[in-house]
Amino acid sequence: MRGFAARSTVDEAIDWVDEHALPLGSTNVPIGDAHGRVLAEDVVSTLNVPAFDRSAMDGYAVRAEETSGAGMYNPLSFRVIGQSLPGQASDAVVKTGAAVRIMTGAPMPAGADAVVPVEVTREADGQVEITEATAVGKHVGRVGEDIAVGTTVLPAGRRLRPQDVAVLASLGIAEVPVISQPRVRIVVTGDELAQPGDEREEHQIYEANSFLLRGLVLRDGGVVTSIDFLPDDRESILSALTKSGADVVLVSGGSSVGAEDHAPSLVADAGKLAIHGIAMRPSSPTGIGRIDDTLVFLLPGNPVSCLCAYDFFAGRAIRQLGGRSPDWPYHRTTEMVARKLVSVVGRSDYCRVRLTENGIVPLAVSGASILSSTTRADGFVILSPESEGIAPGKSVDVYWYDQS
Amino acid sequence: MRGFAARSTVDEAIDWVDEHALPLGSTNVPIGDAHGRVLAEDVVSTLNVPAFDRSAMDGYAVRAEETSGAGMYNPLSFRVIGQSLPGQASDAVVKTGAAVRIMTGAPMPAGADAVVPVEVTREADGQVEITEATAVGKHVGRVGEDIAVGTTVLPAGRRLRPQDVAVLASLGIAEVPVISQPRVRIVVTGDELAQPGDEREEHQIYEANSFLLRGLVLRDGGVVTSIDFLPDDRESILSALTKSGADVVLVSGGSSVGAEDHAPSLVADAGKLAIHGIAMRPSSPTGIGRIDDTLVFLLPGNPVSCLCAYDFFAGRAIRQLGGRSPDWPYHRTTEMVARKLVSVVGRSDYCRVRLTENGIVPLAVSGASILSSTTRADGFVILSPESEGIAPGKSVDVYWYDQS
Repeated sequence: MRGFAARSTVDEAIDWVDEHALPLGSTNVPIGDAHGRVLAEDVVSTLNVPAFDRSAMDGYAVRAEETSGAGMYNPLSFRVIGQSLPGQASDAVVKTGAAVRIMTGAPMPAGADAVVPVEVTREADGQVEITEATAVGKHVGRVGEDIAVGTTVLPAGRRLRPQDVAVLASLGIAEVPVISQPRVRIVVTGDELAQPGDEREEHQIYEANSFLLRGLVLRDGGVVTSIDFLPDDRESILSALTKSGADVVLVSGGSSVGAEDHAPSLVADAGKLAIHGIAMRPSSPTGIGRIDDTLVFLLPGNPVSCLCAYDFFAGRAIRQLGGRSPDWPYHRTTEMVARKLVSVVGRSDYCRVRLTENGIVPLAVSGASILSSTTRADGFVILSPESEGIAPGKSVDVYWYDQS
Repeated sequence: MRGFAARSTVDEAIDWVDEHALPLGSTNVPIGDAHGRVLAEDVVSTLNVPAFDRSAMDGYAVRAEETSGAGMYNPLSFRVIGQSLPGQASDAVVKTGAAVRIMTGAPMPAGADAVVPVEVTREADGQVEITEATAVGKHVGRVGEDIAVGTTVLPAGRRLRPQDVAVLASLGIAEVPVISQPRVRIVVTGDELAQPGDEREEHQIYEANSFLLRGLVLRDGGVVTSIDFLPDDRESILSALTKSGADVVLVSGGSSVGAEDHAPSLVADAGKLAIHGIAMRPSSPTGIGRIDDTLVFLLPGNPVSCLCAYDFFAGRAIRQLGGRSPDWPYHRTTEMVARKLVSVVGRSDYCRVRLTENGIVPLAVSGASILSSTTRADGFVILSPESEGIAPGKSVDVYWYDQS
């Protein structure tokens, strides 16, 4: 056992992550699975939407000039010479005194240049009376008015919203090029861990970090390829670190400098341990490195430290590998401080807070082992190494533990 | 064909939804699948976390009073009589002059009342020198300090965050009681629809609404049980409406009062069509009702109307059935209006906007059929029936089409 000789700053660790977590390659997914994925390329339309002039209302397609003067007390009568339905165009040609019954989305018949909405008409005996004048182009959707051929519809890097996927569908696109999802292996070490639902021996604790990390990885767009539970044993940890098939390995526990902390030296031997020990609280005993192309995050076993180290570094890497923004995936607002937030110059602090009527207050108990502090908190504040704490009455940015 | 005789207000439609969309029953899920689900019951702890006094640091467990006066120039020496590891307690009893080597999370040995961190120690030849005094309880995590037996850990209705699931795991809970996910059947009607990837005939359009709705339902916590594509045919639509196995049926297309709009009368005949025609723009031809216990939403085929009607009514129902908040699932901020938002008294408006340097501006093209208006927009503003529009320089609440 020894202490950390020197600690990196949070910014140094983030810089290393940003340098090494570059977007993965692309893959095609069926459009039905594209929601939430990140577009790998600009999508340029190869067709017009709509592909033909169409009605924007249920009503009657007419020649607009012929409706001039129509009114409640001056209904004008037209002969109904056909019907145009969506997918079933009318082949009638609209000439003087004629109209074609038309539904929303149906193709405009030849000769007509406007649609009179059904609400201002009355049809009987093959004739329709129109009680409101209209103008050329009224209630007509023009070829390409939604999307014209050659338009860049969505840019590379866009995280696809439901309506984005619908726009791609409307262009007839069946397969969408998206950034691959980072494959994440979760490795939980510790001789003291029991699984929820199992009997627990006297000095065992129930394992929680795999459940924590699994939810966080899902939130950040990664795919959990495996969750391995390992004893504090060099052989098995090395094997889990070096096995192929993962873009990221998250190791929970054994990240510090104690006798049972094997992972840091294993990473240093098999690859590069770029960061070990960070000037922050909690999560100081965090390690970051890589083995070949796999990024490795050594996360403290204390659950709050594990959450905090994940969110500062590993989540950021996973989001960027998947083409997402590196930004914190939490909603942020500015709030008044109601009770002093304590910090120490020289380290970053991750301070869990609650929102009260008077502003935010830090949670009284906030040790790295008190996981319930993160469930009782509404969110957190990050205090920079320059901060000596934040006094009541000052404003501060709060990240909210939104329901994600 | 006829027009709508009278339209309901948006508030009337929402009131009907809120009255009929009550949370579904509960089900148990394995804890590994609990992330994002809504807790059906309060969870009360049946054990203490931690279940034993434990070290919060790597270091040496000692009797605090014996470290009095220790310092860099006055190291005090203790005999190392054992080692306590996580899951492997030491059976040594710490008496005068003795210390037990201890790791973070390991059980405190009998007799010791504080831990001296490894950073202020030096061990050699079975002795450890301590260069900093400590106090009783220092770096010791007490029984139940995270969660005490009998504490309500998480309340019913909580949407489970990653750390919530971890807290449940730390209590040994293997199965979690959650609200059932609403089962949603999507029915898309229309003779004019081609599937993305297929050849399209001249007056066909590519079907987009099923992709839109699928993403929205996923976002709101529903499960899409099936997506049926049907011709505008009463028999097949009735069968899709009345088939069992869905809590919600979403019908896209044929929701208005035209000749091909079969769904409204089918719902009225088979159950109750509570709302048909809403004073809003777009989405005016929306229907809402139920058949037995299944809520039915008749959504306009125009894609912007479909999105808007889903978000105002169907999404709200699905979220509430699943135990979530009825609130709009969009991040909201207050922004300055840079160009007039147009509205008409007597109807609600769903106005797509972009954020510019000077504030928000409405999208120039915003017809109900222009789906790309929702992908070019950054978000939307809802204008109430009382509004005559919002002038430049005024503030307004904007909902952002966040990446969901």
